Amino acid sequence: MQQHLFSDLNSLRALCLSPLPPSANAVHHITEREGALTKPPGSLGRLEELTAWLGSWQHRATPRLNHVQCIVFAGNHGVTERGVSAWPAAVTTLMVKNFREGGAAINQLALNAGAELSVIALEGLRPTHDFTLRPAMTERGFLDAVAEGFRAVRPDTDLLCLGELGIGNTTVAAALAAALFGGTGADWAGPGAGSDEAGMARKRAAIDSGLKRHQAFLSDPLTAAQCLGGYELAAMLGAALAARQHHVPVLLDGFVSTAAVAPLHALHDEGLAHCQIAHCSAEPGHKRLAQALGQNPLLDLGLRLGEGSGAALAVPLLRAALACHLGMHTFAEAGIAA
Amino acid sequence: MQQHLFSDLNSLRALCLSPLPPSANAVHHITEREGALTKPPGSLGRLEELTAWLGSWQHRATPRLNHVQCIVFAGNHGVTERGVSAWPAAVTTLMVKNFREGGAAINQLALNAGAELSVIALEGLRPTHDFTLRPAMTERGFLDAVAEGFRAVRPDTDLLCLGELGIGNTTVAAALAAALFGGTGADWAGPGAGSDEAGMARKRAAIDSGLKRHQAFLSDPLTAAQCLGGYELAAMLGAALAARQHHVPVLLDGFVSTAAVAPLHALHDEGLAHCQIAHCSAEPGHKRLAQALGQNPLLDLGLRLGEGSGAALAVPLLRAALACHLGMHTFAEAGIAA
Repeated sequence: MQQHLFSDLNSLRALCLSPLPPSANAVHHITEREGALTKPPGSLGRLEELTAWLGSWQHRATPRLNHVQCIVFAGNHGVTERGVSAWPAAVTTLMVKNFREGGAAINQLALNAGAELSVIALEGLRPTHDFTLRPAMTERGFLDAVAEGFRAVRPDTDLLCLGELGIGNTTVAAALAAALFGGTGADWAGPGAGSDEAGMARKRAAIDSGLKRHQAFLSDPLTAAQCLGGYELAAMLGAALAARQHHVPVLLDGFVSTAAVAPLHALHDEGLAHCQIAHCSAEPGHKRLAQALGQNPLLDLGLRLGEGSGAALAVPLLRAALACHLGMHTFAEAGIAA
Repeated sequence: MQQHLFSDLNSLRALCLSPLPPSANAVHHITEREGALTKPPGSLGRLEELTAWLGSWQHRATPRLNHVQCIVFAGNHGVTERGVSAWPAAVTTLMVKNFREGGAAINQLALNAGAELSVIALEGLRPTHDFTLRPAMTERGFLDAVAEGFRAVRPDTDLLCLGELGIGNTTVAAALAAALFGGTGADWAGPGAGSDEAGMARKRAAIDSGLKRHQAFLSDPLTAAQCLGGYELAAMLGAALAARQHHVPVLLDGFVSTAAVAPLHALHDEGLAHCQIAHCSAEPGHKRLAQALGQNPLLDLGLRLGEGSGAALAVPLLRAALACHLGMHTFAEAGIAA
């Protein structure tokens, strides 16, 4: 039997509490070259910041985007029994099949991004417990899902895009966000994949019920993720942790992927510094969550799909930033007095 | 000698006043397919709108992006004699050389976008007249520059990215924007390629001086463009007009390219419907101008470079939108009950 990567919550917590720092040396070299390129200083705006961000977390003075990995983690949620989603849980299985057959949005977007896509169905898509009744996962179940996400990140990856799929998981994300940053179902719940007002009311009620049931345990971010989260959310947290260890910067997608990794921020101020929110979802809680994390998403195009779609959509921006940084001539090369 | 494409301002104005409509049939087909794809309706946000926009102006029920043309028009400006720019006019020539040698940002961004780049130096980079003293161009000079831009658009292009280069041309763009939409130098002038406060004061003064000198002629948008504009701005207007005639949607870049084509909006409410502002420039006048045109730029990443950089940066978003539309499976194909 495979040895457990995390023996208990404490061993996972210890890793979260000591995130590796970025490379100041890489940033120094990148900033120096950026300033010599044939453009007014700073005129490429956030593209310049993105190049430095890539290099700082890759620990490379010459960043690269040769291997971009996009992982979609899929899971099911017991809380769907509360009628929180407009879609039946069986759709998770059908959509995983659709991913594997190349028919979903993320298949096209990963191809467009030059990213390698993999789809990981957690626990054979067995649902978590209904968090209004008991903790969504056992400690062991939670830790195993974190470990599965951790192991899914290839150490030679240059950039990781995190995506997810799971009917009911915007309810789960809203509950976790409320546990970490305060507020109630009314503050964090949105229409998700298309809930009507009655569905939204059930969603808010389920969130508030879960927050109340587990309130004694929510001050620890990892326990909150175990009680209110889901297998695919736990796996994304593990993948973000692995990325930090392997010097891999991360593009987060929408509300669910951001909520999934938010415990890393709650545990350590710099815990998500290697993660950039790629796109601000139309799911209303995402903007609030981005603000709580002090992040300014790269794109704001009204997507509300998940699957890693927003993350994959931003990859060409990073490629553009890097192409400018590596390919432009300097003022000296162009014979222009800067 | 080549025949003039536009014999006088009236013949140009006549074309501007009768812009071709989009294809409602293409939009109908695109909307129908979009609704059948394996995602919650509308969940790809603006990507869905972009596909419909592409098809409507290409007049194609199946839009395509096989040939993307990026044209950078370069010109010089007599108003630089007023000390409005931090850079000498000679930099325009050096940067055109840099484009031709592949060393500028737009070279890398066009490659990243899969776009064919061409650079057109108007009038051999001979400057316009100083608009604080007399009209920037003669009517003939203006019309010839419009015609040069018009002829530069290949009729088989699927998407046109408009860019520009010209030391002093944010001053020119600000003057033209003020003439078309009201306000003074203080409302429209920004730091451009890096003016300090004293340079900004000279810029505002030059704009106000030009507006005053030509005020009797500014009620006609084309005459305003002749008196206050520049050769490269006139060429962009011509290129946007040609694009409409050839069923080519257009991505506008920053403040200068948007101001250049703004007379088409001033002449006809729908005159710029085939043009989408790709990126909101950090040059402050651009946001104001986008609002005046009723446009919401696709990107907002703090670029302030021109060259077509923001337009080229948005091309992968359009490719992503199209890839989803064409490549995704329908609910019926995936065996999911929508």
